[in-house]
Amino acid sequence: MPETMTFYFDFSSPYGFLASQKIDELARAIGRKVVWRPYLIGIVYKTFGGAPVDHPLKKAYMLMDFARSARLAGLADANFPPDFPASPVTPSRVFYWLESIAPDSAADFARAAFRACWLGGRGVSDPEAAIEVASALGFERAAIIAGMQEPAVKDRLRHETEAAIAQGIFGSPVIQIDGEAFWGFDRFGMIEAMYRPR
Amino acid sequence: MPETMTFYFDFSSPYGFLASQKIDELARAIGRKVVWRPYLIGIVYKTFGGAPVDHPLKKAYMLMDFARSARLAGLADANFPPDFPASPVTPSRVFYWLESIAPDSAADFARAAFRACWLGGRGVSDPEAAIEVASALGFERAAIIAGMQEPAVKDRLRHETEAAIAQGIFGSPVIQIDGEAFWGFDRFGMIEAMYRPR
Repeated sequence: MPETMTFYFDFSSPYGFLASQKIDELARAIGRKVVWRPYLIGIVYKTFGGAPVDHPLKKAYMLMDFARSARLAGLADANFPPDFPASPVTPSRVFYWLESIAPDSAADFARAAFRACWLGGRGVSDPEAAIEVASALGFERAAIIAGMQEPAVKDRLRHETEAAIAQGIFGSPVIQIDGEAFWGFDRFGMIEAMYRPR
Repeated sequence: MPETMTFYFDFSSPYGFLASQKIDELARAIGRKVVWRPYLIGIVYKTFGGAPVDHPLKKAYMLMDFARSARLAGLADANFPPDFPASPVTPSRVFYWLESIAPDSAADFARAAFRACWLGGRGVSDPEAAIEVASALGFERAAIIAGMQEPAVKDRLRHETEAAIAQGIFGSPVIQIDGEAFWGFDRFGMIEAMYRPR
């Protein structure tokens, strides 16, 4: 079993999207397995404030910086989803439902759901988008719809969000390695410098 | 005349300190001259919120991340000044007074004032610390004290703070190159990648 790194993210997060498309490369470079952990960053903003979209200067910077960061990451076609900032509850629930029945498919779903919204123009909060992405991975539409409404799945997302915040996680992406947190897609270089096998 | 890059910072900012010790190296790598621009980030926090010290999770992360970032920057002995978070008004005024009478000394003062507080245990808001640093650069104590109280110097700091915010600057450090802003010490690598002569 390789050691792990935990990838905390929110499906509505621009830098979470960039991280989702590059994390596998980082994981290979440092020889770790990624544990994907979507959570609801809105709960952090509700509790502590700090939402970038509430800060006009930070919001303007983020719009510019996201385009630049996407270009440098080889994802120049990326765009904010039409419903940004949107609730990530639906894709997060589909993720945890998949993880409960077919663990290997959950990360595939997350990568593809991010692409559907940030490269394909779909809405993050649009249930049809999440359903189509999961269908394309071979799951039945009716099962997806039932799965994402299961009380255990809803509880799981709530629990994962509380557990992330209890550990001090407040951003997206945050990569946690051996208990140490790295906040931001712009820290991938630091992680690689610290953990690449010599 | 080489092209310039503008370095916006607050003397009470941990990542501003790290940037102050590394910006000359970055400037050499990309062939630009640094324009040092201290401003009062507290005015940004007062207007828009977002002070990291008001966010318990962000504050805890910053304390841990600053130690790690300082270590990786070869500044492992760095510590938060005893009065953190403190007013940066005094060193900022000494800076603009120096810039008005001996432009080349202003950046030397900024580098050394940061070191006095973040490596030497002095308080950012302690007038004696700023006076001693300027004295060590060859200026008379009485002139420093008179200079930092000049109405034109006080106006200058107010004006520079307003001008920074009017341009959308809200963090420390922010590096501005040809009108494009880069927020954070962790963006030095991105700047180098984008601007290093080929």
